[in-house]
Amino acid sequence: MPIATINIIEGRTDEQKEKLIEKVTLAIHEAIDAPIQNVRVILNEMPKQHFGIGGKSAKKIGR
Amino acid sequence: MPIATINIIEGRTDEQKEKLIEKVTLAIHEAIDAPIQNVRVILNEMPKQHFGIGGKSAKKIGR
Amino acid sequence: MPIATINIIEGRTDEQKEKLIEKVTLAIHEAIDAPIQNVRVILNEMPKQHFGIGGKSAKKIGR
Amino acid sequence: MPIATINIIEGRTDEQKEKLIEKVTLAIHEAIDAPIQNVRVILNEMPKQHFGIGGKSAKKIGR
Amino acid sequence: MPIATINIIEGRTDEQKEKLIEKVTLAIHEAIDAPIQNVRVILNEMPKQHFGIGGKSAKKIGR
Amino acid sequence: MPIATINIIEGRTDEQKEKLIEKVTLAIHEAIDAPIQNVRVILNEMPKQHFGIGGKSAKKIGR
Repeated sequence: MPIATINIIEGRTDEQKEKLIEKVTLAIHEAIDAPIQNVRVILNEMPKQHFGIGGKSAKKIGR
Repeated sequence: MPIATINIIEGRTDEQKEKLIEKVTLAIHEAIDAPIQNVRVILNEMPKQHFGIGGKSAKKIGR
Repeated sequence: MPIATINIIEGRTDEQKEKLIEKVTLAIHEAIDAPIQNVRVILNEMPKQHFGIGGKSAKKIGR
Repeated sequence: MPIATINIIEGRTDEQKEKLIEKVTLAIHEAIDAPIQNVRVILNEMPKQHFGIGGKSAKKIGR
Repeated sequence: MPIATINIIEGRTDEQKEKLIEKVTLAIHEAIDAPIQNVRVILNEMPKQHFGIGGKSAKKIGR
Repeated sequence: MPIATINIIEGRTDEQKEKLIEKVTLAIHEAIDAPIQNVRVILNEMPKQHFGIGGKSAKKIGR
């Protein structure tokens, strides 16, 4: 019953997010043999000013 | 000083969320005898395309 | 498909934890009408020196 | 490689958030000697109706 | 700079965990084109009595 | 009522953790003017084999 939460910076398309859910679910299934239907994935999108890298936001750094 | 974070799919009314905070707080209080005023609850609402069940988003599955 | 994570300070018995899982699950079910079997609860136990209240650990404060 | 997640109630300016990222990063660096460039900070803003204090939302309490 | 946290029930070997980190990192890289070296993965192991499924702990259910 | 969770690799002394709680609490207080007594800090210690950097655990990399 693995539950994964993935923090990503905003800006991905719904198609990319769907692919992210699918691929991470399969990765967990393959690595630890958890049944696919038991895996849960939560995506958490962060605005660029909400993610800090080395003391500055991704917005300020220009990523 | 229990702190609960609850991930729910978007679409609940403010009234339901208020009830969720109240009932979960009481449940924690009753189960482990923590003073009600010390309990904190964080609700985290997920868009349907951000929650994956068995490798597909709740949006794609149609929930 | 609600998923709750509850941070508690260490020291509760397995019986109390079982009760915590049961009562919080029911509270979520009643508040937002989620099917009981879909609710997931993760308990996260913190050693007293890992929880800070107003700048001091629960261990130092003597809780 | 410390990773901090900070839950705050919505309503802070981008300038305050930038300061929050900067100061928390420095605090972690000074306390445990982690290189500044390795620190990550995730800010999570909660609407007032999503944060419960003693069984009521911050919105209801009027904070 | 994606950061994934994966909650799993205790009992996996270090080899399985290493594989889990590797495969999930690659999955994130492939799905959203994030550079491999930027991905962080945090594994969180739960004792069976700390994970609730439908109101009962995994220990009680016998998983 | 800010709540911070800080993931760190295991190996710090209780004194360092106490300092971490104190300094991060002050940093939050100074940055967003939250009362010190309202700040909560949760430390989450990760074994080296539970933290992945670029697809390998900190243990394997030798950090």
